[in-house]
Amino acid sequence: MAVTPIITLTTDFGLSDHYVATMKGAILSINPSAAIIDISHDVPTQGVEQAAFLLFCAAPYFPPGTIHVAVVDPGVGTDRRALALVVPDGVFIGPDNGILSAALSDDVREVGSPRPVPLPKDARAFLLSDARFRLEPASNTFHARDIFAPAAAYLSTGIPPSDLGPEVHEITALAPFRAEPRDDGTLVARVIHIDRFGNVITNLRAEQLPQTAFRVEIGTRVIDRLVRTYAECAGLSALVGSSGFVEIALDQHSAATALGARFNDTVVVRPI
Amino acid sequence: MAVTPIITLTTDFGLSDHYVATMKGAILSINPSAAIIDISHDVPTQGVEQAAFLLFCAAPYFPPGTIHVAVVDPGVGTDRRALALVVPDGVFIGPDNGILSAALSDDVREVGSPRPVPLPKDARAFLLSDARFRLEPASNTFHARDIFAPAAAYLSTGIPPSDLGPEVHEITALAPFRAEPRDDGTLVARVIHIDRFGNVITNLRAEQLPQTAFRVEIGTRVIDRLVRTYAECAGLSALVGSSGFVEIALDQHSAATALGARFNDTVVVRPI
Amino acid sequence: MAVTPIITLTTDFGLSDHYVATMKGAILSINPSAAIIDISHDVPTQGVEQAAFLLFCAAPYFPPGTIHVAVVDPGVGTDRRALALVVPDGVFIGPDNGILSAALSDDVREVGSPRPVPLPKDARAFLLSDARFRLEPASNTFHARDIFAPAAAYLSTGIPPSDLGPEVHEITALAPFRAEPRDDGTLVARVIHIDRFGNVITNLRAEQLPQTAFRVEIGTRVIDRLVRTYAECAGLSALVGSSGFVEIALDQHSAATALGARFNDTVVVRPI
Repeated sequence: MAVTPIITLTTDFGLSDHYVATMKGAILSINPSAAIIDISHDVPTQGVEQAAFLLFCAAPYFPPGTIHVAVVDPGVGTDRRALALVVPDGVFIGPDNGILSAALSDDVREVGSPRPVPLPKDARAFLLSDARFRLEPASNTFHARDIFAPAAAYLSTGIPPSDLGPEVHEITALAPFRAEPRDDGTLVARVIHIDRFGNVITNLRAEQLPQTAFRVEIGTRVIDRLVRTYAECAGLSALVGSSGFVEIALDQHSAATALGARFNDTVVVRPI
Repeated sequence: MAVTPIITLTTDFGLSDHYVATMKGAILSINPSAAIIDISHDVPTQGVEQAAFLLFCAAPYFPPGTIHVAVVDPGVGTDRRALALVVPDGVFIGPDNGILSAALSDDVREVGSPRPVPLPKDARAFLLSDARFRLEPASNTFHARDIFAPAAAYLSTGIPPSDLGPEVHEITALAPFRAEPRDDGTLVARVIHIDRFGNVITNLRAEQLPQTAFRVEIGTRVIDRLVRTYAECAGLSALVGSSGFVEIALDQHSAATALGARFNDTVVVRPI
Repeated sequence: MAVTPIITLTTDFGLSDHYVATMKGAILSINPSAAIIDISHDVPTQGVEQAAFLLFCAAPYFPPGTIHVAVVDPGVGTDRRALALVVPDGVFIGPDNGILSAALSDDVREVGSPRPVPLPKDARAFLLSDARFRLEPASNTFHARDIFAPAAAYLSTGIPPSDLGPEVHEITALAPFRAEPRDDGTLVARVIHIDRFGNVITNLRAEQLPQTAFRVEIGTRVIDRLVRTYAECAGLSALVGSSGFVEIALDQHSAATALGARFNDTVVVRPI
């Protein structure tokens, strides 16, 4: 299944400590030819949804068969499940705390999160329980190294996912990355990410935008300018970002700072 | 042309977001065997000259045929040109805003920047316009993923650069990385980079240093000590850094903090 | 010796500058097929012991034959020696200032650091002096690029370590990563690392913990709770981290901030 042995990593481990490198060592000890790509390791600590969002945006650009390891795992060492989720485009490996939503379309996920949902028809999931494919004895504090990375590495060598452990039929899913339409015609979105440039990225998808005139409200601020490129921003402006989500940008400066915007803040789109 | 498929990346995207990873996914989807090396992604936002300088320093140490992608691109989505610049040592890909100066010797570049200059005889440049070698439809906000990274990846598979688009004969160049000699015998340099250690790196090349005694002035401070190694610094000292530029260092501490130095500050070398 | 050409890098260079990339270019110019893995480049500047500790924790997870380059090198350009240390698990390359302790077991190292010690029987060390395996002329300020990285790259192509230069028989070693037992039954440990989560990692090894009840003292705080996982922390708690060292953690927050803990602070384990 993994024709090209590419393994990506998304964690909240940062790059200052040895944790990410140790995961890479564990992978290369099993499959020295794996190509390992970092998605981000600067996910806010315990930011399960933020990690899922970054991976959701990045994964479609990787080759089919890519194996994505995503570990933001406050429950490490407890009885939360460790899973490999096999979808048509690749495999997603991580704790079953919602982070694997990166692989799930909106159809499967429901408002209110996280909650268990049945797997879609074209997906299968397996527990990472077989000791042959873990570093044993697994620690209680670092399953990224001892369980998740080895599972990815063994899959990249061609072992079938069903060898990893028993199949499971439901998975913990976060709410869709999508704004909620209200009866009054507004769309209620949330800030899902703030990037290095201070662009305030919402979970409002471009295709949800009203066909008629609208304005964007965040806190007490109103943005009624929709532009096509960052260079066109003159003051706070909305535009469709590179992953199809509406974001708020400011020419030459951080929109997030100007707005005092934070993760999870409410953003309302109101037809006018 | 690219015997060894090595692709380097220099951007102002940071490593916290998924942007750099998405570029890598786009590359690996086209050429899974490319080796991708990060030069820096912490270039100050919109710091075209800083990016060019870092790449200028790093590129000579990569194998011939390396493909360098450099994207600091405030004009993304506007009519600024996207180019591949082919020089004897490799290929440099990016927006035509001066960043590709990393590939150009001082002979070609002129004081006053940025401005268009004719290409040197041993260089050729091509527009990145052929849709076959882009991710289509290209977004308006992320040409690094949709245009620059794919061009690098296709080149690394062996397509000829002339397939990318029409040839162009001039390129936007920044001023040389070189101090300006004045009639009074002084050299007027600028701070071009401040590194992690607080070393204040100027655009004064070692070979420009006077053969006779001199002192270095920055703000109201005078430095008259030229040392050979960091260990020899005792107070603020000048030394020739590893890329041949004169820098100001301080033993055990940040010279930049001690001086309050910033990018673009003037540094004068005065014979005494 | 290097069946798998994996080269790791541990430095205090940060990732904002071009220094790490330049090392990678130097390696790939010699061996384009080397896989280069970053351990950490955010070691505190001049933090020799911290670098050694991170590499000590990470190295065991890499395949046999891995070549580890470790450069925290305030003495670059002086007469401090540059070494390749060959041990059964791989090769460690760096300045002879204690950083290569990452490769040495406690048996070899002694309290009080750094000091020269004889090499263990299963290790050999060689000066990096042969000009054929350096970038010449080597700079005075960047031996990572000109001496250490090239040595690693040449070794990864299969040249014998003894070609690098004359054999040496002692090496500078730091004190063991191990708490000191005192006559009164206490163990005196130190803070050896603080990670991104604010976990305060000590040099107390799990196997040193008393078999009977004990408490952990740091500054004026007493911790008498030993837990198995981060999720079990309720207030400041001690647990055995993933590399076998005792650390102090706090549920959902930074223990380091709560404690005001810093590198090298004393931690006492007292039987009760």
